[in-house]
Amino acid sequence: MMNKQQILKMRPIGLPTKETWELVETEVPEVGDGQILVKNMFISLDPAMRGWINDAKSYIPPVELGAVMRAGTVGEIIESKNTKFKKGATVVGTGGVQEYSLTDGRGYYQVDPSLVPLQTYTGTIGMPGLTAYFGLLDVGQCEEGNVVLVSGAAGAVGSVVGQIAKIKNCKVVGIAGGPEKCKYLVEELGFDHAIDYKNESVKRKIHEYCPDGIDVYFDNVGGKILDDALTALRKKARVVICGAISQYNNTSPIKGPSNYLSLLVNNARMEGFVIFNFAKRYQEGLMALGQWVAEGRIQTREHVEEGIENFHETFLKLFSGEKKGKLVLKV
Amino acid sequence: MMNKQQILKMRPIGLPTKETWELVETEVPEVGDGQILVKNMFISLDPAMRGWINDAKSYIPPVELGAVMRAGTVGEIIESKNTKFKKGATVVGTGGVQEYSLTDGRGYYQVDPSLVPLQTYTGTIGMPGLTAYFGLLDVGQCEEGNVVLVSGAAGAVGSVVGQIAKIKNCKVVGIAGGPEKCKYLVEELGFDHAIDYKNESVKRKIHEYCPDGIDVYFDNVGGKILDDALTALRKKARVVICGAISQYNNTSPIKGPSNYLSLLVNNARMEGFVIFNFAKRYQEGLMALGQWVAEGRIQTREHVEEGIENFHETFLKLFSGEKKGKLVLKV
Repeated sequence: MMNKQQILKMRPIGLPTKETWELVETEVPEVGDGQILVKNMFISLDPAMRGWINDAKSYIPPVELGAVMRAGTVGEIIESKNTKFKKGATVVGTGGVQEYSLTDGRGYYQVDPSLVPLQTYTGTIGMPGLTAYFGLLDVGQCEEGNVVLVSGAAGAVGSVVGQIAKIKNCKVVGIAGGPEKCKYLVEELGFDHAIDYKNESVKRKIHEYCPDGIDVYFDNVGGKILDDALTALRKKARVVICGAISQYNNTSPIKGPSNYLSLLVNNARMEGFVIFNFAKRYQEGLMALGQWVAEGRIQTREHVEEGIENFHETFLKLFSGEKKGKLVLKV
Repeated sequence: MMNKQQILKMRPIGLPTKETWELVETEVPEVGDGQILVKNMFISLDPAMRGWINDAKSYIPPVELGAVMRAGTVGEIIESKNTKFKKGATVVGTGGVQEYSLTDGRGYYQVDPSLVPLQTYTGTIGMPGLTAYFGLLDVGQCEEGNVVLVSGAAGAVGSVVGQIAKIKNCKVVGIAGGPEKCKYLVEELGFDHAIDYKNESVKRKIHEYCPDGIDVYFDNVGGKILDDALTALRKKARVVICGAISQYNNTSPIKGPSNYLSLLVNNARMEGFVIFNFAKRYQEGLMALGQWVAEGRIQTREHVEEGIENFHETFLKLFSGEKKGKLVLKV
């Protein structure tokens, strides 16, 4: 049986190009003792993947040249020689950008395909949802009635951050690109306000919508928007550093937040996190998210593209802002 | 009775010049009901004063043009119409850069002049000492056995930070300018290592002295040294933002820390603070510091200059690195 795979061929400088990856076909090896073979149905595309292909020490080792590109996946077990997993089960794991994944099952867990559309397990009831949940509530120490600002608000993480904050009775302002996304935030997701960074002054609008400042800023983008948010901190504010998508494809050094001394005068904090550090509490997060989705209190939306061969073009949509909702590739 | 005062005359752009201040002499008004008249003995010169003369919203209002320059003081009450204060008592307060301060006593407290040299109440057993104490132990959550890095380490705050960290059995590395200050840190204050930022590669030396990274970085300087420290964070590290002396006289925008995403990959935090927020716990801090000084576990050193009229030249020593120890002006 042949397996289409996207291999990391060259480390990009700046935005990945077609030469970054190579589509190859290899024979699927025989399933060994303790292994399972998963037919991947959906592949998750996430901004963090850009960091994984840099040749730099980080929270996980970089993807090696010649290796299958790392990615989260949801799929069906088509063969199992592992007693923990049954053939036919639907599993979530880090299967990579390929049609079939052969694995010992570490990091895989079984999900119920009848509860939500499968691709939701790569989004709201998966890593992005968990990132929103622990980032907002644990790192951000978000409390009832807080004023919460979130950037990348129409994205897979940001949209869940805002909706959880609304469940916690917070005032929520989202920052996104373009009037359509802003309308989506306010009218469909229930945000109090949305700021269109492509057409409005982010700094002025933050101060207009949050005249007494913000308690929690959940940052997915970095750059100038982070600096704008820092001008509006309340005393004891928490700035959650979840990502910096505006900086991931930089060819020049990363822009640090010039207004970081706002932390000093406001007794505020800026704290980063990697979701893997909450691994022991995933179950708690997934149960809460699942229940909120089931109750209709969290809306989910995925942007689905098709075909392993279209991985590169689809991946670029993470950075161009063209997507609507969590980006997934249907195999 | 005449009173020599330094008045804020012009807001400086960058480093203050002679034109920033004006020396005036005014008649001391009569002491009213509820007031005390204090003869100032020592005036504290601190980097934070640079921020107070900018026309910008901060944690306290800026010094107004034409007003006496704000400064911490220690002095003797020469007249009292306030039942809480007795004539002859030694008091610490924010008396400003002048010979006599007429005040209702708010923010003043009495100290014992027989315990330590008076000027120590503007340093180790005063605001700088309290800043070190609460900054390291509360904001920095410093624990026994941590690896602690401190910049501005030979200064009024940094020298106490390092010595408290040694009392807590930490490994302590200090960053200071010039071989003489570095020798002082290691040989007199008991730091484990000192890095001379004027003659050594700070980044390389941090990694050499802290091969497993740092738990607490106490930052007094900002700029490139902050960026260097961010490359060496351990998991769950705490970066305490106490000041940014390298940036206070900038005429261009403040340099933000380019390496701030180290907070993300290390689940680390950067937290700022203003000592006034710990006002309710000053007594606790002063008692601990007083005891450590009495036991000889904390060394103190003041750099004393003389004369109200020499305020400007003395103030500049805060930024030129010429001083040794806490900078005070003897009236």
